[in-house]
Amino acid sequence: MLELAGIAVAGVSVGGIETCIQLPGYKLAFDIGRCPPEVVSRDAVLFTHAHMDHMGGVAYHASTRALRHMAPPTYVVPHEDAEAFAELFEVWRKLDRSALRYELVPLGPGEEHELRPGLVVRPFRALHRSPCQGYGLWRRKQKLLPAFRGRDNEEIRRLRQEEGVAVTEVHESPEVAFTGDSRIEVVEKEEVVRQARLLIMEVTFLDDRVSVADSRAKGHIHLYEVAERAELFENEALLFTHFSSRYTARDITRALDEKLPPDLRARVTPLLDGHRGT
Amino acid sequence: MLELAGIAVAGVSVGGIETCIQLPGYKLAFDIGRCPPEVVSRDAVLFTHAHMDHMGGVAYHASTRALRHMAPPTYVVPHEDAEAFAELFEVWRKLDRSALRYELVPLGPGEEHELRPGLVVRPFRALHRSPCQGYGLWRRKQKLLPAFRGRDNEEIRRLRQEEGVAVTEVHESPEVAFTGDSRIEVVEKEEVVRQARLLIMEVTFLDDRVSVADSRAKGHIHLYEVAERAELFENEALLFTHFSSRYTARDITRALDEKLPPDLRARVTPLLDGHRGT
Repeated sequence: MLELAGIAVAGVSVGGIETCIQLPGYKLAFDIGRCPPEVVSRDAVLFTHAHMDHMGGVAYHASTRALRHMAPPTYVVPHEDAEAFAELFEVWRKLDRSALRYELVPLGPGEEHELRPGLVVRPFRALHRSPCQGYGLWRRKQKLLPAFRGRDNEEIRRLRQEEGVAVTEVHESPEVAFTGDSRIEVVEKEEVVRQARLLIMEVTFLDDRVSVADSRAKGHIHLYEVAERAELFENEALLFTHFSSRYTARDITRALDEKLPPDLRARVTPLLDGHRGT
Repeated sequence: MLELAGIAVAGVSVGGIETCIQLPGYKLAFDIGRCPPEVVSRDAVLFTHAHMDHMGGVAYHASTRALRHMAPPTYVVPHEDAEAFAELFEVWRKLDRSALRYELVPLGPGEEHELRPGLVVRPFRALHRSPCQGYGLWRRKQKLLPAFRGRDNEEIRRLRQEEGVAVTEVHESPEVAFTGDSRIEVVEKEEVVRQARLLIMEVTFLDDRVSVADSRAKGHIHLYEVAERAELFENEALLFTHFSSRYTARDITRALDEKLPPDLRARVTPLLDGHRGT
């Protein structure tokens, strides 16, 4: 379990093999390629797209939660996959002879969903070969308006409850962004990618074994493209994921050390689980 | 990797969690609850039933084989699940945006399928809460009839090819039996269970924490029932699988030591992978 910018993160992510990123403090995960045992405890899963290595373990997740008498999970799914997603569960109900309950939340860029009070999810368009979306997570709080700060609690309660005065405003802070599978332009296009306290970003290719052009053609991010944009990242911490299975843990660490400027390198952690040499 | 009666076996099997038994020498596996990385190499999978913990990883298996440019896998599936199984792949083709090729072989008790030349698969009825079947694997060979033994090869070739004489007979030997999930009566009912060189048998419950009556109601085998029938097993080796997740590796070994008569105990290996304390 990692702690990055004060946020607990665990997971596994190997390009083409399986991706599942867990945020235990938020009771959620991004994607379930296979279903690692611990992810069964996450109440919600936000899917970036429906490729097998990102969604293959979803029915197993729902089934195992039911077996353990846990609440039905919430699945946030891109609109373009929602219908087939529901069909998948219909078929599994027949095969597994079980109710396999879950809550489906179809969601797309431009929309938002309050997953729990104060935790808002907003998808953004990722730039992959097939439809894919990233996610921003915002903490939403009511904050006292400046005019009322310093007054005592009883007076504020009276103003709000008895006189109906609006004493607070909504404050939102971008906590986490997860790119899903995407080309690099998602960094320029989406403010939340640059500003979230924790950015979880795919960086599939790392060196000359796969060129930037080939990486772009596959719809992925190359480390060279990240290095060129180093000054854009305002994030407190960055977790790089989804490295190609051709790289060992040592290849990954070395490439980051060599290619990233020190200020960015100091904030980057690579997710090495599932890679050879880990 | 185990070697039992000269047969290589690997796998994981925890009741309700996941079962996947691999026979690398036969290039096949029984069931795929989740998809352990090594099972991707097995060309054929024989499914006992469609519960999630026995079939949940099948689409991931087909997808990973395609990604690695391996031949489409063969899936042997009970007749009662074949239609929903095909639907599952139709849905995954939409989600994964891939061809996801495989060969479906619907098969049931009373039928046989020659998986490869000389390797014959015959399902038998297991006795579970929901439809389930076990499998027997037979080696099929042509053997010289007694009347022709000792004659020289050239003469035999001439008799067979030029005179059309039937010089051989088919000889079959039961190599492996896998019970799937079943109550104990499958031992009395199915000769192959008692006589296969290697018997792979579910023994879900082991001690008084779950009674024989409760085990039977759940459609499973209790160790006490095995001990009572110890003299029935003619197998060279037995692999016991599918222990409940409540048992640690130590619980399992101790229960086998205490309850089984020495002659049977000496032939039994428990599959401990996936159990606590392994």
